[in-house]
Amino acid sequence: MLFFMLKQLVFGHKNPDTDAIVAAIAFSHLENQLGENTEPVALGKPNDETKFVLAHFKQQAPRVVTSVADEVKAVMLVDHNEAQQSVADRDKVQVTKVVDHHRIANFDTSKPLYYRAEPVGCTSTIITKLYHENQVEIPEKIAGLMLSAIISDTLLLKSPTTTDDDKKVVQELAEIAHIDANQYGVEELRAGTNVDDKSAAD
Amino acid sequence: MLFFMLKQLVFGHKNPDTDAIVAAIAFSHLENQLGENTEPVALGKPNDETKFVLAHFKQQAPRVVTSVADEVKAVMLVDHNEAQQSVADRDKVQVTKVVDHHRIANFDTSKPLYYRAEPVGCTSTIITKLYHENQVEIPEKIAGLMLSAIISDTLLLKSPTTTDDDKKVVQELAEIAHIDANQYGVEELRAGTNVDDKSAAD
Ligand SMILES: [Mn+2]
Ligand SMILES: [Mn+2]
Ligand SMILES: [Mn+2]
Ligand SMILES: [Mn+2]
Repeated sequence: MLFFMLKQLVFGHKNPDTDAIVAAIAFSHLENQLGENTEPVALGKPNDETKFVLAHFKQQAPRVVTSVADEVKAVMLVDHNEAQQSVADRDKVQVTKVVDHHRIANFDTSKPLYYRAEPVGCTSTIITKLYHENQVEIPEKIAGLMLSAIISDTLLLKSPTTTDDDKKVVQELAEIAHIDANQYGVEELRAGTNVDDKSAAD
Repeated sequence: MLFFMLKQLVFGHKNPDTDAIVAAIAFSHLENQLGENTEPVALGKPNDETKFVLAHFKQQAPRVVTSVADEVKAVMLVDHNEAQQSVADRDKVQVTKVVDHHRIANFDTSKPLYYRAEPVGCTSTIITKLYHENQVEIPEKIAGLMLSAIISDTLLLKSPTTTDDDKKVVQELAEIAHIDANQYGVEELRAGTNVDDKSAAD
């Protein structure tokens, strides 16, 4: 008798920000290390800030999907839970896991699931903890990507949603990624402001 | 300026079973160890099985409440999330934490929160993990109570909802509580069957 893990897709919300894209990549990697068979995808193309982040860490943008039930029976959600922010045909698949830092609303399942929410500044902060809890090493590239997501969501640890957990994790990820978080963070946030480089040079 | 932790109530579902009562006691204890100010309460009186469990471990039954907004601004839920299983005036308070092993339905918050659900046999299995993650020692009495909740929810690890996590945790808690889980478990489940002792003696 043969057993195999059914493939699952992992994705963040529509109109993805850096956390939505990066948390899908990082959580999919973690789940695969733990024996699951997952692929990170996105519900839209990366914005300018996220493009900068992906290029900086030489990471391909996840495949964009607009429906999931045609290819999988189950999915994992990151950085969102509300139905209207998710894939259109989500009611046709099982949600097996959620990792998020938002309020819970318009979210219903018919079966028990893994749900991990914490009131912190960024989903990637929680995913960093999950790597530790599962004793999986964080690869340098994933550390850089998650660092970028926290910088984005917390505006370089300045937003009112920033917690001590976010600050601690930023320090740790910066070390793993060999990045100066402040210098890189300013570049990253500037990339998201959509200012034309030529005119901004003055 | 003085800071103090506002008191929060911790409770399981209406018509409480052993897990609903015990998970409130155990999670409240853990949260208080971590600096919160919580009191475990119940949305109903203990059933016969739970009475046996509380008596066995010399634990007082939690105070029964039918509303919460008159005494606190925030609450933590265990072993349930659906509004119709919860306290009547829950929409008048903030839910700050949930630990549960059921599907999510009829649950909405206006703010981010801590939500920990896992598809395991018992809430007390998850709370045991939370003690470990937070490096808080499980007192002998709380170990015995949580063991009883897992025995109850999984019918002594025989229910189809039983997972490897539940089995591992039962072993660990039995050791801490100095209990023979099988022998004690049969007694506990028998106490819940409401059979009159005299007639059952034959
Ligand atoms: Mn986001
Ligand atoms: Mn986010
Ligand atoms: Mn219950
Ligand atoms: Mn339960």
